[in-house]
Amino acid sequence: MTDRLERQFAFLNEADRLKQILRATTLVDGSRVENSGEHSWHLALYALVLADQAGPGVSIDRVIRMLLIHDLVEIDVGDVPIHSRNGQAHGSEATQAAEARAAERIFGLLPPDLGESLRALWEEFEAAETPDARFAKSLDRVQPVMANLMSGGGTWETYGVTYDQLEARVGSRIARGAPALWDWVREKARPRFG
Amino acid sequence: MTDRLERQFAFLNEADRLKQILRATTLVDGSRVENSGEHSWHLALYALVLADQAGPGVSIDRVIRMLLIHDLVEIDVGDVPIHSRNGQAHGSEATQAAEARAAERIFGLLPPDLGESLRALWEEFEAAETPDARFAKSLDRVQPVMANLMSGGGTWETYGVTYDQLEARVGSRIARGAPALWDWVREKARPRFG
Ligand SMILES: [Ca+2]
Repeated sequence: MTDRLERQFAFLNEADRLKQILRATTLVDGSRVENSGEHSWHLALYALVLADQAGPGVSIDRVIRMLLIHDLVEIDVGDVPIHSRNGQAHGSEATQAAEARAAERIFGLLPPDLGESLRALWEEFEAAETPDARFAKSLDRVQPVMANLMSGGGTWETYGVTYDQLEARVGSRIARGAPALWDWVREKARPRFG
Repeated sequence: MTDRLERQFAFLNEADRLKQILRATTLVDGSRVENSGEHSWHLALYALVLADQAGPGVSIDRVIRMLLIHDLVEIDVGDVPIHSRNGQAHGSEATQAAEARAAERIFGLLPPDLGESLRALWEEFEAAETPDARFAKSLDRVQPVMANLMSGGGTWETYGVTYDQLEARVGSRIARGAPALWDWVREKARPRFG
């Protein structure tokens, strides 16, 4: 028990560092960039509130669990903005390999049973194949769109993003897990791109 | 559908402001104070990782949902540190009344079905009577203890907290929902108070 709690808290204390990982996206009011800890909270709240946008067979509670842990690897690797390096850095092989090593280390802090189950949940998220993972990915893509819309441009300005790039890098992923949500958000976003 | 999504996003965009509500507690490394958005994420992760500390009849997924929304009223009311004003401000009647008005406003942004269910979940948390709420409250109390232990004093220094005050204001609440957790944490905390 005692050793188990030592490991559980070693992980929870290490996880605290996610609050210091900065993203490219700002808060809704544009006052500062968002960190990955508060981002993970906001996404879990998205899942809770937008549950009716999930397709059949999606377990919102599993989606929430997935979103709570989805960015922990950034403690070692940092956030790789989706529009950075002309959209090429995010999901590159080098990034994926670094994230796998980070998952090994960070989930490895936990008691093995727990570490393995959370690591499997993270891998499911990354693979984006199950209905739960697809919906989680859709939310992860739609939240920065809302922040950019609210703050008046955000990372679309920073990286000179075109509407076609938004559709390809973001819209197509949102539509995969939450098509009606993308239909609605697209109507808001399109006029911004002239 | 469209009006429903307008309301869901009005709430999610308003919720973003929780990232700007500052707490008395610092990050684990003491580098800055924590905000209530990232705190809510960390607590939900606590629930996921410390599920084996919950008593019988506790639904961890309900606890996680509760923790995701438990601090939203602070958008209007601010965080009331547990050790502030000699332990008298937190849970005072004035604070409770202000928080009830905040809940009315903030959950009222949502479509009514969703707003009512999340508001009921927040009220259940506040009442701290059900097994789920008691466990959620225990986690909300234990996380700042860990931050203070890791950062070398934190709010115990700020507010000149004694061991007896820690036991009364914090330990007794942790023990109510997670007795073995308090037994373990107490052993770590006690030596700090000489
Ligand atoms: Ca709290």
